[in-house]
Amino acid sequence: MNFSSYLPTNIIAGRGCVRARAEAFKPLGSHALIVTGKSSAACGALSDVCAALEANGQMYTVFDRVAPNPTLACVREGIALLKAAGADFVIGLGGGSPMDAAKAIALLSVEERADEAVFAGGYGQSALPMAHIPTTAGTGSEVTPYAILTDDFSRTKTSISSPALFPKVAFLDGSYTDILPPHITKNTAMDAFSHAAESILKNSSSPASEMFARESLRILFPLMRSIDAPSKEERDALLWASCLAGMAIAHTGTTVVHGMGYFLTYDYGIPHGRANGLLLGETLRLCEEEHVPALDLICSACGADTEEIKAMLSRLLGERERIPRGVLEGYAARAEHNKNVGKCKFGTSKDDILRIFVRSLG
Amino acid sequence: MNFSSYLPTNIIAGRGCVRARAEAFKPLGSHALIVTGKSSAACGALSDVCAALEANGQMYTVFDRVAPNPTLACVREGIALLKAAGADFVIGLGGGSPMDAAKAIALLSVEERADEAVFAGGYGQSALPMAHIPTTAGTGSEVTPYAILTDDFSRTKTSISSPALFPKVAFLDGSYTDILPPHITKNTAMDAFSHAAESILKNSSSPASEMFARESLRILFPLMRSIDAPSKEERDALLWASCLAGMAIAHTGTTVVHGMGYFLTYDYGIPHGRANGLLLGETLRLCEEEHVPALDLICSACGADTEEIKAMLSRLLGERERIPRGVLEGYAARAEHNKNVGKCKFGTSKDDILRIFVRSLG
Repeated sequence: MNFSSYLPTNIIAGRGCVRARAEAFKPLGSHALIVTGKSSAACGALSDVCAALEANGQMYTVFDRVAPNPTLACVREGIALLKAAGADFVIGLGGGSPMDAAKAIALLSVEERADEAVFAGGYGQSALPMAHIPTTAGTGSEVTPYAILTDDFSRTKTSISSPALFPKVAFLDGSYTDILPPHITKNTAMDAFSHAAESILKNSSSPASEMFARESLRILFPLMRSIDAPSKEERDALLWASCLAGMAIAHTGTTVVHGMGYFLTYDYGIPHGRANGLLLGETLRLCEEEHVPALDLICSACGADTEEIKAMLSRLLGERERIPRGVLEGYAARAEHNKNVGKCKFGTSKDDILRIFVRSLG
Repeated sequence: MNFSSYLPTNIIAGRGCVRARAEAFKPLGSHALIVTGKSSAACGALSDVCAALEANGQMYTVFDRVAPNPTLACVREGIALLKAAGADFVIGLGGGSPMDAAKAIALLSVEERADEAVFAGGYGQSALPMAHIPTTAGTGSEVTPYAILTDDFSRTKTSISSPALFPKVAFLDGSYTDILPPHITKNTAMDAFSHAAESILKNSSSPASEMFARESLRILFPLMRSIDAPSKEERDALLWASCLAGMAIAHTGTTVVHGMGYFLTYDYGIPHGRANGLLLGETLRLCEEEHVPALDLICSACGADTEEIKAMLSRLLGERERIPRGVLEGYAARAEHNKNVGKCKFGTSKDDILRIFVRSLG
């Protein structure tokens, strides 16, 4: 039993919590850069944040130009706006893309790096203080020390990791997810489910990380079997389960499944959560073939066997994308260099990775 | 679903972790006051801490005069030593008593208060940084924002609460508990079990607090049924379960059970964990009589019914103390003013409290 558990984010949950708990923004600074996409206004989150900051007498500048799978150019644009406005803290508001962009802005505005050094690691302990407010139930980024950006150097998405990237505060208001269309609800739920399952399949999993992952799966699995029209209570539960899965990967990171999925997102524009969902079922099948004991933890948390989990994912996925074998072989060769190869409880040889790719998408 | 979850302590677990992860002390300051009792030397914890600090080039002063159920006088003595030594951070090392004394020293050395104002609440956000190292598996103080001190004004034990009391780091090394005699292992396990069960029975329980509490009970119950000679792995699990129960009450606080038990400790010297164990079984019986739904959560986490839980506690307790009814009536009258009356999922009228007292100790 050797492990660490560090989750310093103050989590505030409940419908209406941003306005009701506005005082939680106060210690963060005097002027916020609100980093968001175009859709955060529609769900009411942006107006709640602005009202909360105004009630506190805090200034803010809105940067709402974050597109899905944010690029370094987008981050640079945000940093320029932050500096021009004199903002001293950052609010990430949206799905994973705005939250990850917000984290990169908060970090790279303090620790300047040339583009080619951004993914080189070795970050210090400093970033601007952050509050994060998810508007989808999937990424868990509001409680992790990671920011995932489009990496045009490696033609994939790559993570930046630093304890400085833990948000100070996360607000979980399920009402922001009420308006999500079914495909986004499904894709983001598959992202959360994959985080929890992958965390259990990582060599670095621990009694702490497994508690968060099992609790997330316990909540997610039955909800995902009947996800077509979630009630408000189910929306709240999905958001909490997504946060729990974030806490799980905050301990362990993800597996090669995420690394494999990033290729699909970069090259084919397959949404991130869907990319994970496409690959996870066959990863679990590989675990079964290899008699990986940790698979039992996943199944018992879900109250289901591997086939039932695969069937749940297949139902959410609908018709699968098909990708030529030659392309998949290229991905498998590149995935062999993924930083999580050899750090998973299932085989991650080039052959293993190709097998998952071909069974999933071939 | 309205709740908060804030657990900022960095938890480092594993046998040998204090020396192996010595660098975690570095950011805390340049000179440590090590607050401990007489027994921390015997288990090897004190020499590990000293070696870690020496490896870091950090100075330290040892204050090893904390007796069980620490008094304000003891805290004042520690503060005087801290100031004379010029210490700028505090290490709490031992069972609940040294850890709670360490917290009070870290807080009251920054925020000066007259004795009569110590329990008046309203503390600010500042205390000296702390690392905590439990040498028993019971209190969970290493991850809570509470310090419990002997309160001679009210002739009981009373808690101080402030977010500033969260330790920065907690080291969990099960080897320090290997030498504990059976009665301390049992009493402290009952303390942890009571924390987890009481947290679930608090009105303020939430999806977050309940996860920690259920996980703690899931680990504790089978271990407590066969606790006579724990293996090293079982010692490690007890310590982790105690920490989990601490995380549960860090969210919710305890119930009137703790308030009732403090009288027994103050007047009869009954060890704190044992006092909780004496009262918890009949509290669960009251919950059953009142059809409190949360009791199901406790039972399902244990995989046992109320009778089996009561039997487990009775076996650990052995022969019960008996206290005259007149004394118990006096306690029930005083407990009626406990701050947790009306904040529990079971009845906490004077009659309810007297019923628990009389059934447990009459």
